[in-house]
Amino acid sequence: MKKLINDPAAVVQEALRGMAAAHPELRIDHENRIVFRGDAPVRGKVGLVSGGGSGHEPMHGGFVGPGMLDAACAGEVFTSPVPDQMLAATRGVDGGAGVLHIVKNYTGDVMNFEMAAELSEGIEVETVVVDDDVAVQDSLYTAGRRGVGTTVLLEKIVGAAAEQGRPLSEVAALARKVDQRGRSMGMALTSCTVPAAGHPTFDLPETEMEIGIGIHGEPGRRRVPLAPAREIAEMLVEPVLSDLDFTADPVICFVNGMGATPLLELYLMYGEVAALLEKAGVRVARSLVGPYITSLDMAGCSVTLLSADDDLLSLWDAPVTTPGLRWGA
Amino acid sequence: MKKLINDPAAVVQEALRGMAAAHPELRIDHENRIVFRGDAPVRGKVGLVSGGGSGHEPMHGGFVGPGMLDAACAGEVFTSPVPDQMLAATRGVDGGAGVLHIVKNYTGDVMNFEMAAELSEGIEVETVVVDDDVAVQDSLYTAGRRGVGTTVLLEKIVGAAAEQGRPLSEVAALARKVDQRGRSMGMALTSCTVPAAGHPTFDLPETEMEIGIGIHGEPGRRRVPLAPAREIAEMLVEPVLSDLDFTADPVICFVNGMGATPLLELYLMYGEVAALLEKAGVRVARSLVGPYITSLDMAGCSVTLLSADDDLLSLWDAPVTTPGLRWGA
Repeated sequence: MKKLINDPAAVVQEALRGMAAAHPELRIDHENRIVFRGDAPVRGKVGLVSGGGSGHEPMHGGFVGPGMLDAACAGEVFTSPVPDQMLAATRGVDGGAGVLHIVKNYTGDVMNFEMAAELSEGIEVETVVVDDDVAVQDSLYTAGRRGVGTTVLLEKIVGAAAEQGRPLSEVAALARKVDQRGRSMGMALTSCTVPAAGHPTFDLPETEMEIGIGIHGEPGRRRVPLAPAREIAEMLVEPVLSDLDFTADPVICFVNGMGATPLLELYLMYGEVAALLEKAGVRVARSLVGPYITSLDMAGCSVTLLSADDDLLSLWDAPVTTPGLRWGA
Repeated sequence: MKKLINDPAAVVQEALRGMAAAHPELRIDHENRIVFRGDAPVRGKVGLVSGGGSGHEPMHGGFVGPGMLDAACAGEVFTSPVPDQMLAATRGVDGGAGVLHIVKNYTGDVMNFEMAAELSEGIEVETVVVDDDVAVQDSLYTAGRRGVGTTVLLEKIVGAAAEQGRPLSEVAALARKVDQRGRSMGMALTSCTVPAAGHPTFDLPETEMEIGIGIHGEPGRRRVPLAPAREIAEMLVEPVLSDLDFTADPVICFVNGMGATPLLELYLMYGEVAALLEKAGVRVARSLVGPYITSLDMAGCSVTLLSADDDLLSLWDAPVTTPGLRWGA
C-alpha cells in the first residue's frame, strides 16, 4: 500500500490536524472530530450539519464555511460518524433557528443522524436524506438509492439559503427539492485501498472497469471491458437522463473525479458529457469539474445533473468561502 | 493503461474542448491550443502569458482569468508548446502595456519562448524563468534547476500586480523576486503514464518511493524505501530550508498533489510540514493544499515555500477568478 500516511489507524485524526493548520478560519474539535465554521453558532441562522465516513474529501469538512455548512462530522474511513459527534455538532451550530441534518443515504449514517436528532432536546432539527445515485436501487450499505454527487451541489445551494436567513422549514424543503432534482451515476477504472485494510477493496482486471460504482468501492451495475471516454460518458449520462426529465430547466452539470483521476481526463470527460447533453436538448447553465466527492485513491469519475430553476441558480452563484468551494466573497 | 480518454493522440485537443464547454468565460483558440481570458487583450494592462507541456492541470490553462494569466499555451503532454503558439498568445494579450512570459525552466520551453519573444515585433516582452526545484541542479530536461510549484504562486501574485495596472518593468521585477524567494521539493509514490506511451514512465517497486522527483517523472535525488508521512515531510522540508532562510518573512506554504494523491493524504502531509516549520521557527501566513501542478496520474506530493513580504501577501489575497484558483471576486 503506497500512501502518504503514518499509522493507518490515525489517518483521519492526523488529516484533521493538517486541516486545522491549513485553515485557521475553521475551528476543529479534535476530540469529537468535527469541523466547525470559526464563528459557529451564527445567531438566528439555520445551522447546517453534515458528515459521513472519511475518504471522500473535500466532502464534507472541506465544505464548511460561510455560505455552506456550519459543521461536518468525520467518521473513520468509509464508516459513519457516531451519534455523539452529530449531537455535539448540532449543539455547536444551533443559533436559535434550528438545525438541518444533511445525510447521504447509507444505513449507518441515516440511523446515527436519526438518533442524534432524537437526542437534540430543545433544538428543532430537520433532516434531508440525499439519494441521487441512479446506478442501483439497494446496495451493500443502503436501502434505496445511495447519496453521491448531488450532496455537493445541495450543500452549496442550501448553504446559501441558510446564509440569507431563510427559516428552517424553507431550508429543509429546499434541500428536499434539490435532492429530488439531482441524479448521479459513477464509474471506476481502479479500486480504492482503505488504509486500515492495506489492500484494494476489490479486484478490477487491467482490461475492465466498473459502471455504476458507489463511493466506497461497493459494486455497481456491471463490469465491462475498458472503453473510450465517449462511450463511458454515454454509459453514465444515459441512465441519468432516463431517470428524470432534464429538458424543462437548465442544469448544473458536475463531472466529479474519484480521487486519482487527473483534471486533464475530467475535462475531456466533461467535453463528452456536454456533447451528449446538447444532443439530448439539455441546456447547461453552470458546470463544476474536479474531485469534490472522492473515494480515496480510486480512479474514475461520476456525472451529476441537477435541474436548476432560477432560485437554485442564484443560490449556486451566491458567495461561498470554504476550503473546497470558494467564490464571490 | 486505464484512462478516461478516447485517442491517446487527441487527449490535449479533446481536454481543451471540454474546458471550453465548462468555462464559457474563457476563449479557447483550438487551432493554436491557447486558453485566453474572455476579455483579452485588456487595454493598458500588462499581458501575462505562460504555457508548457500538458499533463500538469490545472496549470497553466486553469490559471487563466482576471487576477492571474491572460493566456496559456498548451503543448502536447510533457512537451513544450511551439513558438508559433506563444507568438499568437503574445499578440492576443497585448493591450499596449507589454507582455510578460512566465516560463518554467525546461530547455524546450525556454528556447521556444525566447524565439517567440524575438518574433514579437512591436510588442515589448519581458521573460521570467522559474527555477525553484531544490532537488537537482541539472536534469533530463533542464540546465539548472527545474521550475515547479513556485510557478503557481508566482502566476497568482504577478497576476494580481498586473491587474492593479503596474507597468511591465515592475511586474517583471516582481516575478523575478517571487522566483528568488520560492523553493520546492517533490516526491513520488508511483510513476505517471503518458497516454501516447501507454505504460508507466519508470518502474518504482511497491516498496520504494522517489525523493526529489520532477513533474515529468524525471529522476529525483534518490530512491528510498517507503516511509511514514512524517519522514517524507522531513525529506522534503529539510532541503528547502537548507537552501534559503525562511525565518525572516512569513511564508506561503503550498502542499501540492501530483495528480493521483487524495486530499485526505495531502492534508495529513500539510500537518507534518506545518509541524516541521514551527519547529524551525518559520511562520506560515497563508496555505494552499491541493493538486495544482500535477504530473498526470502520478501519486505523490511536493512542498513549496515562498518567503512573502507584505506586498506579496496582499497580492496573494487579491481577487482571482480562474477555473483553478478563485476567491474574493
